[in-house]
Amino acid sequence: MRKGILMVISGPAGAGKGTLGEMLLTRDGGFTFSISATTRAPRPTETDGVHYHFLSEEEFARMEEAGEFLETAEVHGHRYGTLLRPVMQMLDEGRDFLLDLDSQGAISVMSKLVDCVTVFILPPSFEELECRLRSRNTENEQEIQRRLRNARGEVEQLDRYRYVIINDNRDEAYQKLTAIVAAERQSTARYRPEIV
Amino acid sequence: MRKGILMVISGPAGAGKGTLGEMLLTRDGGFTFSISATTRAPRPTETDGVHYHFLSEEEFARMEEAGEFLETAEVHGHRYGTLLRPVMQMLDEGRDFLLDLDSQGAISVMSKLVDCVTVFILPPSFEELECRLRSRNTENEQEIQRRLRNARGEVEQLDRYRYVIINDNRDEAYQKLTAIVAAERQSTARYRPEIV
Repeated sequence: MRKGILMVISGPAGAGKGTLGEMLLTRDGGFTFSISATTRAPRPTETDGVHYHFLSEEEFARMEEAGEFLETAEVHGHRYGTLLRPVMQMLDEGRDFLLDLDSQGAISVMSKLVDCVTVFILPPSFEELECRLRSRNTENEQEIQRRLRNARGEVEQLDRYRYVIINDNRDEAYQKLTAIVAAERQSTARYRPEIV
Repeated sequence: MRKGILMVISGPAGAGKGTLGEMLLTRDGGFTFSISATTRAPRPTETDGVHYHFLSEEEFARMEEAGEFLETAEVHGHRYGTLLRPVMQMLDEGRDFLLDLDSQGAISVMSKLVDCVTVFILPPSFEELECRLRSRNTENEQEIQRRLRNARGEVEQLDRYRYVIINDNRDEAYQKLTAIVAAERQSTARYRPEIV
């Protein structure tokens, strides 16, 4: 049986990794969402174990201490993280899944699971990145400037990733992403067919 | 600029690596043939430096001694080999190229160029392999038995290759091969885009 692919997709905010990741999850039947753990309170529509694993600050800290997370991050004062055990179980069952992470999270996963398939999404230029961040209209000027500075630092790290895709045209970028998935499904690291 | 891909395709005789390799060379504009060196005499239609680099036994032996070959093989008493220098030059110029090699040649290339992209082509079964070898009608019974024995040994080595494709259906196998090429064109090992 084939082992599952753990695909880690990263890149600067505004490069389009979220959209490409969602396209993969929606269109490729083989991919499963990973359920994050978080310390933030559930919204009325959210179910524990479906949308998130909701944890108290204490539980989260204890599990982090015990090395149970593949990666953790802090966003707006709340902790988020991916639990290692369910990931390993899914991979052993041959299920592929995707983590859309910032640079720090991606590098943390690489250090813990060397066999993950890492893809860095690049914007065509910093000018275009700035344009995309502004057109979202969700961040203030200070935040946009912070994200642009971060982007330059993250792009410096792209050698750490196995693959890089310039997201100039969404459909072309998606095609490249699916080629990476198709190729990795033939990798002998996870797939050793037996013939008789 | 992107560095070229050196793709090494191997697998037992009858698995279909020759056909898949030819399809890639014909249909993918990016791939270049590699010109082998040989000690056999040129046929009337063959030109030195175009079809082969024709060498004397002494020249071949001297160059082999000097480490100028990426791999060598002996077929029907003649020596064949791939010269290292033109390969390195083509890769530096960003040209992709393909070597269709037996197991021994493939393993020799892997040991000399770690960045080569190795693909092992598997037949769907040994029974089907035997059937394909018989239908070629080019080998006698003894040769067919020898190739089948070799095939079992070669299949044991498939973990040494980066990718494996079961060639059950030619077009599906070709599609997998092109996905591997498309993915490797995004590999940061050979491609480090600079954005401004």
